[in-house]
Amino acid sequence: MTAVPAARSPRRYDPDRKSRIVDAAIEVIADHGVAGTTSRLIAAAADVPLGSLTYHFDSIDDLLEQAFRRHAERMSPRYEAHFEKATDLAGFATAVTDLISGDAGGDARDWAVSYELYLAALRNPALRGVTEAWMRRSRMVLERFIDPVTARGIDALIEGLVIHLTLSTASFDRADTRAIVGRFLGVP
Amino acid sequence: MTAVPAARSPRRYDPDRKSRIVDAAIEVIADHGVAGTTSRLIAAAADVPLGSLTYHFDSIDDLLEQAFRRHAERMSPRYEAHFEKATDLAGFATAVTDLISGDAGGDARDWAVSYELYLAALRNPALRGVTEAWMRRSRMVLERFIDPVTARGIDALIEGLVIHLTLSTASFDRADTRAIVGRFLGVP
Repeated sequence: MTAVPAARSPRRYDPDRKSRIVDAAIEVIADHGVAGTTSRLIAAAADVPLGSLTYHFDSIDDLLEQAFRRHAERMSPRYEAHFEKATDLAGFATAVTDLISGDAGGDARDWAVSYELYLAALRNPALRGVTEAWMRRSRMVLERFIDPVTARGIDALIEGLVIHLTLSTASFDRADTRAIVGRFLGVP
Repeated sequence: MTAVPAARSPRRYDPDRKSRIVDAAIEVIADHGVAGTTSRLIAAAADVPLGSLTYHFDSIDDLLEQAFRRHAERMSPRYEAHFEKATDLAGFATAVTDLISGDAGGDARDWAVSYELYLAALRNPALRGVTEAWMRRSRMVLERFIDPVTARGIDALIEGLVIHLTLSTASFDRADTRAIVGRFLGVP
């Protein structure tokens, strides 16, 4: 690679450009939804010329897929972190309850991007590779405590309860969430 | 009301116009997402002049809310129908399993509109009146068989499992779904 005088072309050496475009795409999806996301908006958010997108990505779909994949890869460690300290089934039930209560009050932008992914994957089966990998990774941490079928159930229960809590106008008691989780796991 | 000669103004007497606009909005949301939905697209889909929208609705948000409300009101009877024949807890567990298996293979357009509602309600709390009413109605039918806390859990489990099934690239055995439901309900 040839060094380019900084004064004449300050952005030419820009090794993080591709990554920055992916981050910008996530922000544009959060603000405008996939339906409102355009190459122009992403380029502006990343502060790069429009041509950079075609240079680094095969298509807008390729870029969206990479954006959703990165979003999932950022969400997974947060999910996993909840279970680090659990050592038995009772501790696991507490961790699941905390996860549900915490996530329901979590970052609405993160949820928006997640739901955008669900919607996009519904319309475009190619994106189900991203959702499948994300779900597998979530279940893997659950399977440290429970069998694979129960893990699938608990992962779905977490998903459904968090969605219903975010969509509700009523508050929901943490003790009730714990009771639901306990009933499922057979832990009073 | 004055009769209008049909030949000169065939659309003037159009008592279903408002309802047709609401239906058209649902279709436009299914096709373009809320982010891509415009008054112009809805008017075109309903085959009415743009001014009809401002005549019948306070704002595009008012129209979207009515569209989502109608969507929810159409989905509820399908949910309820699954439980009509159940008479005991074992029959209820079968009905829940059928609902999950059937809905996961259901109409992708209906799911798209539902997820659009979830997303829109996340961004706009005013829409949580629609989602709250929908969830209450779903739980009410479940409460014919189980207590309110368990009903909340089962409703969330159904939601989560259907979402995960639609987002998965792997198939999932009906017997496993039945096992998950049975574990939760204490019905082997």
